[in-house]
Amino acid sequence: MVPALPNGRDMDNSRHPSKRVSLAGMHIDRTSAVPLHLQIAAHIRDSILRGVFPAGTQFLGSREIARELGCSRTVVLTAWDLLYAEGYLASTPRGSVMVAAVAAAHVEPPSAASPAAEPAHMSERWRSLLGLDYETNWPSVFAPGAPDVSTFPFKQWSRLLRQAWQNPREQECLDLPPEGHPQLRSEIANFLGSVRGLVCSPEEVVITSGTSGALDFCSRMILDPGDEVWVEEPGFVEARWALTAAGARLVPVPVDDKGLVVSEGIRRAPGARLIVVTPSHQYPLGVSMGLERRLELLDWANKNDVWVIEDDYNSEFRHQDSMIASLRSLDREGRVIYFGTFSKIMMPNLRLGYLVANRHFIAGFAKGRARIDVHTSGIGQLALAEFMREGHLLRHLRAMRRVYAARREALIDAIAALMPDDLTVSSAVTGLHLVALFTETMQARMSDREAAAVLKRAGIHVQPLVQNFLQQPTRQGLVFGYGRLRIEDAAPLLARIAACISAASRNAPSNPLSY
Amino acid sequence: MVPALPNGRDMDNSRHPSKRVSLAGMHIDRTSAVPLHLQIAAHIRDSILRGVFPAGTQFLGSREIARELGCSRTVVLTAWDLLYAEGYLASTPRGSVMVAAVAAAHVEPPSAASPAAEPAHMSERWRSLLGLDYETNWPSVFAPGAPDVSTFPFKQWSRLLRQAWQNPREQECLDLPPEGHPQLRSEIANFLGSVRGLVCSPEEVVITSGTSGALDFCSRMILDPGDEVWVEEPGFVEARWALTAAGARLVPVPVDDKGLVVSEGIRRAPGARLIVVTPSHQYPLGVSMGLERRLELLDWANKNDVWVIEDDYNSEFRHQDSMIASLRSLDREGRVIYFGTFSKIMMPNLRLGYLVANRHFIAGFAKGRARIDVHTSGIGQLALAEFMREGHLLRHLRAMRRVYAARREALIDAIAALMPDDLTVSSAVTGLHLVALFTETMQARMSDREAAAVLKRAGIHVQPLVQNFLQQPTRQGLVFGYGRLRIEDAAPLLARIAACISAASRNAPSNPLSY
Repeated sequence: MVPALPNGRDMDNSRHPSKRVSLAGMHIDRTSAVPLHLQIAAHIRDSILRGVFPAGTQFLGSREIARELGCSRTVVLTAWDLLYAEGYLASTPRGSVMVAAVAAAHVEPPSAASPAAEPAHMSERWRSLLGLDYETNWPSVFAPGAPDVSTFPFKQWSRLLRQAWQNPREQECLDLPPEGHPQLRSEIANFLGSVRGLVCSPEEVVITSGTSGALDFCSRMILDPGDEVWVEEPGFVEARWALTAAGARLVPVPVDDKGLVVSEGIRRAPGARLIVVTPSHQYPLGVSMGLERRLELLDWANKNDVWVIEDDYNSEFRHQDSMIASLRSLDREGRVIYFGTFSKIMMPNLRLGYLVANRHFIAGFAKGRARIDVHTSGIGQLALAEFMREGHLLRHLRAMRRVYAARREALIDAIAALMPDDLTVSSAVTGLHLVALFTETMQARMSDREAAAVLKRAGIHVQPLVQNFLQQPTRQGLVFGYGRLRIEDAAPLLARIAACISAASRNAPSNPLSY
Repeated sequence: MVPALPNGRDMDNSRHPSKRVSLAGMHIDRTSAVPLHLQIAAHIRDSILRGVFPAGTQFLGSREIARELGCSRTVVLTAWDLLYAEGYLASTPRGSVMVAAVAAAHVEPPSAASPAAEPAHMSERWRSLLGLDYETNWPSVFAPGAPDVSTFPFKQWSRLLRQAWQNPREQECLDLPPEGHPQLRSEIANFLGSVRGLVCSPEEVVITSGTSGALDFCSRMILDPGDEVWVEEPGFVEARWALTAAGARLVPVPVDDKGLVVSEGIRRAPGARLIVVTPSHQYPLGVSMGLERRLELLDWANKNDVWVIEDDYNSEFRHQDSMIASLRSLDREGRVIYFGTFSKIMMPNLRLGYLVANRHFIAGFAKGRARIDVHTSGIGQLALAEFMREGHLLRHLRAMRRVYAARREALIDAIAALMPDDLTVSSAVTGLHLVALFTETMQARMSDREAAAVLKRAGIHVQPLVQNFLQQPTRQGLVFGYGRLRIEDAAPLLARIAACISAASRNAPSNPLSY
């Protein structure tokens, strides 16, 4: 593999030995997967670029270097060949190996600042995204939206993944359609019909990389920078990020006990291009949007050519008979884009979801998306279709509905028993979280942000409701996820929470108006 | 499950029968997964909203409707309950079921246009993305970049997927870090060291949803709308789309036989914020960027605070000893963002890739990305790490290097034997595609766009080089992918191509200057 060296450049080992440099100081890592000759080449490249080996520097003969480094001469010669090909090394008139002029012309002074001490240029939009204050992903039993995976049928899921990949179709390995795997689209259409009462065809379904991924593309498809979008206040913070990244101007529209106050949206942003709502179970308050509001919203959207995104994020955990029809079911002009996700009914790390929309929208969405990130990962799509077809998803869902309803009840009971004067829970629907609103007594003692800080110091992470507001909050409360709350833990945890709050308000009565 | 009906509304079945409507015309689908009561509710909702059942419309009694539809009375009563709850139905003073005023206030005239006949508002940026003219995903043996999956070790891959999911860690099911699975990051760092000679730590690696997905986020992180970016001319069209979607202004910079002409980039766009290059194997021409150019590029980028994306899209198929060091290896200021993908060495539908960058960049990238689409799907990350750790990827890669080199050789031989006066293939490196440039003779006969059209009519899809230019093309040729070309098919296919071209140029000599 080692070609003959040109010009016999390794022949004059003994001349001017004092002028030739050694590699004795180099660190060789024999446990590394990087071959030795590449380690040597990297070291020399680096030394040249740092100015340690200026142009014309000559090296000791390959035999001596091999002896110094404790490797074979072939290794050294292979490194030399590589550096010759790259232009770092050249031959002296006498055939010695030396640093080439071209490489040395670009050296930095060795005193240069350490590499990348400061981040280089970053866009305004990214900085505004990073600047948003929010704490995510804390490992807490009360994390809103986190499902319980302990009883998930991993045996079936892993079997179906193996089955899907044992002998896949060649064409599917190369590229899926940007809309997603046809079998999965079809299973989702069936699922929506039976679980949600939403009648749609597979052609109206597109597979997305979860709700966030869907919103990322929809917001870019619908909005140009500076366009206005109505968001619920309080509302789902994660949804606001993708909108912010797309350059949208977020217009908070208040939510009352009938859901989004449409008239207020019209007043605040009559030129909005998009409305993002959670009508079946408003996030975070849990309100279900009344029929009159739904029709009012659709009427206005139709008359003003505005898209509506309906994020139906955990309707699956409710019994369909207790649910109002989805906005999408009421939509006669194909104006509603319905979002669903497998993050809650399966698990979040799959990053799999879907949207349902009219076929014109689907065509534009799929074509544009194909040009940005091709399609959602195909690793799990066929396996998920089979998982649904064999009924494992429905079975798991039915079991988890009962589990979550019981956990919710245990949490509500514990709040009622242990903090009756401080917190009230109004809404009766199920899901994966609830909001415990502060009573007037509690509000007089501290803000929700302060309560969350007190609990955090005690090692209990609960989200303050204020984090879900864009503007000055109109209500205060704590958002409790209970997807992973064991029934027997509810009362002890609430007792600890009550004790922390009570101790804190005794020790340091605070100004309830400060945020 | 059927609660008592209020007001005994089903009691007066026999009064005013002529005024009551029937559901006899409704289509019931007994094979559907949608329960019957939901089908009935959907039909009534729809009829109300279309104005077919105006406010005050009374329905026949539940027994009669059940008889008409051939279902149980309970089904009808359950549908009534749902529609009462949603506000569509109300009770008459006498307890009959009628359409409520609120619902009917929002009906459309039945003459309204068919739903979603025209797409509603779409953003300028999305329209500009869709407006780009490019044909993708044609099912051709010559599709550039498509690998051969017929000998992929699916047995190992499917086994490892099952293994990864049989008993996963709970925390990993909930959320992966936005940077990706730690084991996969670590395996990629090892892989880059041994296959590419690129020394990096796992902390400098982020898992992406393929090169397109990586470019989508990097372009938004680095560029604000209107910012300039240098792209190679000709260059990788897919890369330009994500940049276009991010609102970037693309500045085409010519490529000569030493790669990107840096001085020309400086002349055309001295204020650029980003440079996207394919230095090891320029796409599509196959040129390797010389060391002097590389250092010139880095010097200028460093002095002007410009990011450089190095898309090293198929360096794995070259023998490392024949390769120049990556730009990232030469980069002393952490300015280069190195892109790699598993689309070519495994298969595209995984949508898995990675980038390597300095830790400040990684931190900003991961935090921002987490707020847009959370992270790359976790379905395959651990399995891929194990697949690499067990050595299956390296074994497959070594085998495919030989396969692709042989296919390349067969294609070059066939071109030389069958179209010696028309096409020339210059570059000798391996990969998954080559460009056959038009000779002067061939250019005088037809343009590459015309040649591709002629071949397409004969059922042979070959990409004309012109598709890779943003401006007037300086060269003409055909881009042949050969990843899936069987050696024995090379000569017959080239013979057909030669015959088509020759027939077309005999029949209709065209103006070579027209595009």
